[in-house]
Amino acid sequence: MRMSRLFARTLRDDPSEAEAPSHRLLLRAAYIRQVMAGVYTMLPLGMRTMRKIERIVREEMDGSGAQEIRMPIILPAEPWKVTGRWQAYGEIMFKLVDRHGRELGLGPTHEEVVTPLVAGELPSYRDLPVNLYQIEWKYRDEYRPRFGLLRVREFLMKDAYSFDRDEEGLHASYDTMLQAYRRVFDRCGLRYVIVEADPGTIGGGANHEFMANADVGEDLYVACPNGDYLADLEAATPRPPEPADTTALEPLTEVSTPSAATIDAVSKLLGRPASNMLKCILFDVGGRAVAVLVPGDREVNETKLARRFFPALVRRFEDADFASLGLVKGYVGPQGLPDEIMVLADHSVRGGKDWVTGANKSEHHVTGANAERDFRVDEYADLVQIREGDPCPACGQPLRIERSIVVGHIYQIGTTYSEPLKATFVDEDGTERPYVMGCYGLGITRTIAAAVEQNHDEHGITWPRALAPFEVVVIVANRDDEQVTAEGERIYLELASLGVEVLLDDRDESAGVKFADADLMGFPVQLVVGRRGVDAGTVDLKLRATGARSTAPLQGGGQAAADLLAAAP
Amino acid sequence: MRMSRLFARTLRDDPSEAEAPSHRLLLRAAYIRQVMAGVYTMLPLGMRTMRKIERIVREEMDGSGAQEIRMPIILPAEPWKVTGRWQAYGEIMFKLVDRHGRELGLGPTHEEVVTPLVAGELPSYRDLPVNLYQIEWKYRDEYRPRFGLLRVREFLMKDAYSFDRDEEGLHASYDTMLQAYRRVFDRCGLRYVIVEADPGTIGGGANHEFMANADVGEDLYVACPNGDYLADLEAATPRPPEPADTTALEPLTEVSTPSAATIDAVSKLLGRPASNMLKCILFDVGGRAVAVLVPGDREVNETKLARRFFPALVRRFEDADFASLGLVKGYVGPQGLPDEIMVLADHSVRGGKDWVTGANKSEHHVTGANAERDFRVDEYADLVQIREGDPCPACGQPLRIERSIVVGHIYQIGTTYSEPLKATFVDEDGTERPYVMGCYGLGITRTIAAAVEQNHDEHGITWPRALAPFEVVVIVANRDDEQVTAEGERIYLELASLGVEVLLDDRDESAGVKFADADLMGFPVQLVVGRRGVDAGTVDLKLRATGARSTAPLQGGGQAAADLLAAAP
Repeated sequence: MRMSRLFARTLRDDPSEAEAPSHRLLLRAAYIRQVMAGVYTMLPLGMRTMRKIERIVREEMDGSGAQEIRMPIILPAEPWKVTGRWQAYGEIMFKLVDRHGRELGLGPTHEEVVTPLVAGELPSYRDLPVNLYQIEWKYRDEYRPRFGLLRVREFLMKDAYSFDRDEEGLHASYDTMLQAYRRVFDRCGLRYVIVEADPGTIGGGANHEFMANADVGEDLYVACPNGDYLADLEAATPRPPEPADTTALEPLTEVSTPSAATIDAVSKLLGRPASNMLKCILFDVGGRAVAVLVPGDREVNETKLARRFFPALVRRFEDADFASLGLVKGYVGPQGLPDEIMVLADHSVRGGKDWVTGANKSEHHVTGANAERDFRVDEYADLVQIREGDPCPACGQPLRIERSIVVGHIYQIGTTYSEPLKATFVDEDGTERPYVMGCYGLGITRTIAAAVEQNHDEHGITWPRALAPFEVVVIVANRDDEQVTAEGERIYLELASLGVEVLLDDRDESAGVKFADADLMGFPVQLVVGRRGVDAGTVDLKLRATGARSTAPLQGGGQAAADLLAAAP
Repeated sequence: MRMSRLFARTLRDDPSEAEAPSHRLLLRAAYIRQVMAGVYTMLPLGMRTMRKIERIVREEMDGSGAQEIRMPIILPAEPWKVTGRWQAYGEIMFKLVDRHGRELGLGPTHEEVVTPLVAGELPSYRDLPVNLYQIEWKYRDEYRPRFGLLRVREFLMKDAYSFDRDEEGLHASYDTMLQAYRRVFDRCGLRYVIVEADPGTIGGGANHEFMANADVGEDLYVACPNGDYLADLEAATPRPPEPADTTALEPLTEVSTPSAATIDAVSKLLGRPASNMLKCILFDVGGRAVAVLVPGDREVNETKLARRFFPALVRRFEDADFASLGLVKGYVGPQGLPDEIMVLADHSVRGGKDWVTGANKSEHHVTGANAERDFRVDEYADLVQIREGDPCPACGQPLRIERSIVVGHIYQIGTTYSEPLKATFVDEDGTERPYVMGCYGLGITRTIAAAVEQNHDEHGITWPRALAPFEVVVIVANRDDEQVTAEGERIYLELASLGVEVLLDDRDESAGVKFADADLMGFPVQLVVGRRGVDAGTVDLKLRATGARSTAPLQGGGQAAADLLAAAP
């Protein structure tokens, strides 16, 4: 390809709206252009990198026995209503109505399409397992799209769905995918960790995220410095505390706490630490009231709560909810709550006693509140947000919180979709059973951004070889010099004949502009043909990632660039 | 690929909803499955054929110097409102509103996206020409989707857009695309004609359709049996008539025509042929009244009318429109129409005289109405629908109407989009000029259906080699015979090592089911390994397209199949 004809005009200045390095560089280096918030056009350079990732993914999926299909982007609402996700996704799902008044959605993921498809085709256990995948654009109406390709409303994703007879089959299918994902990200040259994660609105059991380390990442995970614990922030489980010694308990005592409606204020007023306060937070869970108890110095993890009650919708109580149950907002305590309110307590509540909590009376609290004696707990569960410094559940060492970009997420969803959608097969014993499913997402456009976050410097992108849109750029330093131009063309053709993906910078621009653009666009190897070099019988080579420079003979310069490329990361 | 693992379950019976052969066969042979009306999932076999067409298109586009990009599917409404297509498409365009209340559409084509893109990147005549293309799903909310992949609401299309300095450049870019399209359809093995066509809601000048012949086709074209005229039905221009001899004219006379409001009734009542009647049809064209005159035996071609006034919206008068102008519906004649009504006449009106037309009075007509003397014609234009038997504009022979499927449509749109969108470049003389554009559509999913329409028999699909999902199927006739199975495996591996795309039918099914499925799915070459053949040291070969059978030695059977394939159409 000749750069004089390439549709790729670099931007000299940083676009003001671009905060993340990958956003800034992909715009400046002419890989993408914004059409509207969170929606981008891929330019020729962006296309080439995207296709390379697609090819790697396709090879690893095909190699793992998955089969490629392609499902629609516009989807009927009905199956989404059956699974509850039409409501659960809410405004995140783009919704529209067709000319006949039928409700449609733009696919954010495709469980509701692939499950009925398989049910129609594979009626017997003999037909299983099967794994179907597609590489297609997905849609999420993000409230605030940002960071270029990292948080967008339209993104390219590979999604795969496995169907098995039983859990054992699912575990095998899941493990095959997990290994395929490792190979994909290894081939892409990403630095990543694999962590246990929360299934979110997908539902189901065990699942893992592939998290590419990046300072700009919005996806936090928890790691033990000893290396014996890794988990998504939302899914991380702190080590449960030792149960408190309840042999001697304070009496339950009501105290007046005028104008002290916050944990801080009550803590100061009574001279008790926040960890001795008991928060009693009320939620509406699909129409049912649920009180959640956590110590005063911890926060409720609403993701964990939503997961506990999936697919019911979970929301915090509003003023009207308090009023309708006769509860005093700001002063609710668990003692004496009516039976219709379910009381859930985090495991950490077992580690405390003699709690200070609301007296269910305005401007009053109680001290000495104790579970069982003074209030009922219907269920203990893991409900708190983890914090930096919490003890590792494996070794007790303080945990650290790290930043990353989730580039892959795989789920054991079991029968979460096949049951409501009545997607069944006839098993060996003649009974109808729902398929046991796994689903496997991999962000293609996100991987582009994550790779740039990990591979850039102050001059531009430093692509790993596998993702670079071109592997070598041949820069003709003196465009008006016929001999230099001819040597550049010769080396360009030599590299092409060696099977190298090569770009010839034959533009009518200064050498300085060409060097800067080559650095910005990030091709792994630069080969410069200039007047001085031609006189001396040499070309200049530069390995973009390290900046290492060398020279090679003018004759055979192409081969030298190809050799340098072969050794590049 | 082993068929025992292939996600492809054929249907024994014809699906009742499928009228067109391609619809029926693509469903039965497990290439596609419907998700809702006009929206399909591509199964693995369909994917493979689709990817083959994509590859051919990509190679020919890249080889023609076009560059691949990818534009979004969800698009902001604003530029569509500027060009007038937001209104012009109306209900055909899927429209939605995002969570922030912004109007969006799903792209039916991308002039409104690519034009501002290029304007932002290529400011100078030196940057031109450029041709950008994408292969992406497009959306049209068809009122009545049907015929499988032929009339759908979601379809895969290659769309390209050329940008030139001037008309001369456009003609060169256009010709390059026309030649590339020929190569694409030739490589796909389609039988097609290239015809002049109507630009429809795209607008602009000369354009051509690539029409694949098919009995089921809904796209009609006109052909002269002499081969000297070919045109899309909507664009076909009949030979203009000889002007009538106006030396002796009847006087204008009002006649009473009680209860005769139709052409037929008046014709009978007055004993004059329909061709002597003058229809005067009223239209609202963007708020302006336009009367269109055509002889009583012809129909107004509203597509031509819409084209004459593009981008203004054209609609027939409704009762209220007649009332507001004081016109008598059913009895309108051109004589004495007020000046604010534009009078347009078809060329054929020049060929007649002494017209019978409405008297602008209920239940009355006039005879002897003549242009100039009795009524004004502001403009003569080509406005009639062509008919079978109309004289060829080149040779006068009666024209024939043929059925086809439009698989490609290329347009010289000139500045139709660049002007309203203010997409300009600085020309050599320093002036700002709008880009002169061409646009080029090619239906990928439609080409699949058109190929099946042209290549099938009563047993199934008969793919041309270039589009077949697999080139050879190796059928193991006796699944429970270990030696037969082993020979089948050996030949399967032999073919794969020869670079042939081969499918091994290793299913636990009878030979009859396997033969029927092979015929239905349409692989070009079938190779059968059976007990008798193994004993005799032979395999059976069949060329699907012709049904020709042959035998080959068991050893080297793979090579024989490869040779047969190489000679296949």
